[in-house]
Amino acid sequence: MELLFLGTSAGRPVQGRNVTAAALLLPQERGVWLFDCGEGTQHQLMRAGVKLTKLQQIFITHMHGDHTFGLPGLLSTRSSLGTEEPLRLYGPSGLRDWVQRTLALTDTRLGYALEITEVRPGAIYEDERLRVVTDTLEHRVACYGYRIEEKPQRGRLKAELLQGLGVPFGPLYGQLKEGQDVQLPDGLLIRSDDVTEPARSGRIVTILGDTRPCANAVRLAQGADLVVHEATFDAALEDKALAYGHSTTVQAAHTASEAGARRLLLTHFSARFTEADMAQLAEEARALFPATETASDFAVVAVRHANRADA
Amino acid sequence: MELLFLGTSAGRPVQGRNVTAAALLLPQERGVWLFDCGEGTQHQLMRAGVKLTKLQQIFITHMHGDHTFGLPGLLSTRSSLGTEEPLRLYGPSGLRDWVQRTLALTDTRLGYALEITEVRPGAIYEDERLRVVTDTLEHRVACYGYRIEEKPQRGRLKAELLQGLGVPFGPLYGQLKEGQDVQLPDGLLIRSDDVTEPARSGRIVTILGDTRPCANAVRLAQGADLVVHEATFDAALEDKALAYGHSTTVQAAHTASEAGARRLLLTHFSARFTEADMAQLAEEARALFPATETASDFAVVAVRHANRADA
Repeated sequence: MELLFLGTSAGRPVQGRNVTAAALLLPQERGVWLFDCGEGTQHQLMRAGVKLTKLQQIFITHMHGDHTFGLPGLLSTRSSLGTEEPLRLYGPSGLRDWVQRTLALTDTRLGYALEITEVRPGAIYEDERLRVVTDTLEHRVACYGYRIEEKPQRGRLKAELLQGLGVPFGPLYGQLKEGQDVQLPDGLLIRSDDVTEPARSGRIVTILGDTRPCANAVRLAQGADLVVHEATFDAALEDKALAYGHSTTVQAAHTASEAGARRLLLTHFSARFTEADMAQLAEEARALFPATETASDFAVVAVRHANRADA
Repeated sequence: MELLFLGTSAGRPVQGRNVTAAALLLPQERGVWLFDCGEGTQHQLMRAGVKLTKLQQIFITHMHGDHTFGLPGLLSTRSSLGTEEPLRLYGPSGLRDWVQRTLALTDTRLGYALEITEVRPGAIYEDERLRVVTDTLEHRVACYGYRIEEKPQRGRLKAELLQGLGVPFGPLYGQLKEGQDVQLPDGLLIRSDDVTEPARSGRIVTILGDTRPCANAVRLAQGADLVVHEATFDAALEDKALAYGHSTTVQAAHTASEAGARRLLLTHFSARFTEADMAQLAEEARALFPATETASDFAVVAVRHANRADA
């Protein structure tokens, strides 16, 4: 599971940073989920070599243009590439109206089913492996954060031990891996728990939209392996952050710290900041939450388990 | 007067070619006019070093997304750059509704007046130096072509001759340049026509939207110094061009030839064509209209007078 940053600038694009979008690349080629879709997101995906045909779901945090204006073009291009796979689009109230009117007024016909869900707080998606929970944040318009929870995974089989016990390769391995105890032809009972590594807890990624510091942000980020938090302003501009419904570096760090998160990626930087400012922005946050980095366009961040470095 | 191509791909962006837009750079820093605004046009302008604060007018040929999806972001960024200069936006019916709803639904507030005109055939703009005429084309949706006519300019003063006649530098020069005859203190009558170069006719640039070959395209391009014409397909795909309301290379050349135009720039190439195909596409058109080139992103084309190479 990797997070690919496609845009890390607030409000408008600047040289080297596009407006907001990030792609969650799921393991084992299980597809791509997109979080926000500023103008030019389809261009960034093309540059990064991520095929739009793999895109399965899009989550929009709020309706501001720097998070949405890339949607119509991306939806259209995904269609013109010929895929007929349905696409699910989640976001705030108003999203359906805007997308449907835009497609109609521009005579854009999609060759796949577009399922639009206007979200409310709670669980909004669940499959065998993942669950997505959303809640409201505090911005100038309705805004949501998304928490992606991987379900606990059964541990790996202890292959050497199984060989030593004489378990033949084949269906028995699958049964043991699934948690079933099995009996060998010679009567030996093999308990699944004895031959599998401990179950590992699932990973948690929290991607927050634009927000002032708030309790819901902390709750969404609780124990997360990776938190993506806006840091539109530096610590000196806390008054501006408050006025515009944004956060500073230090406020983002405070939220991550309160939540007991493991790693913080700052993004959505005001256009006033240049590459030369990034070290200082990171430092401000690290004073409170050491595991902080500033995101940059095309950065790929691996989402690691709390207890393993190689996941 | 120069035309800067910002996007030359049809339907969707491809590596090295964005969707449609072109900027007319007016002489003497008189500003920039934009023709169509596919997604990413603001990014292309930024890369080309053209400031959005100089943008005065936008002309949209038709509502298809590859000609319009860059508008909301561009309008928003022009505002966030702080300019309060009004912006005029021209285009087909439906444009006002879409732009206004999009800005409202995304809570985008512009710090300048946006004047939207839904055009009808005829003259839609006129100032001291330029006039813009539009007419309908034949596409799957309502589509317009734009003809930009420079008004005739009085010829330059013959400076050496004036010196020889003893005309003192100053206001008299201005009067002569404006076409007034003047009398010197010694009684000598200087006729304006005798001391100015012949008036030069204004330049004409015609920028056509997506279209099948049609009489209006020929009329709009009549005697133009530069015609920008779509060539979505090559000559072999004439059936597709007909089916989708587009033109082939050869059809574009035929229109330019019928119109007695001086120069043809082909653009809006189907994503099926790569850079390697461009020579062939140009050749197909040149067989009928030799002064043909294929446009590429960031190409700057000077609009020259019929009778002068340096204009």
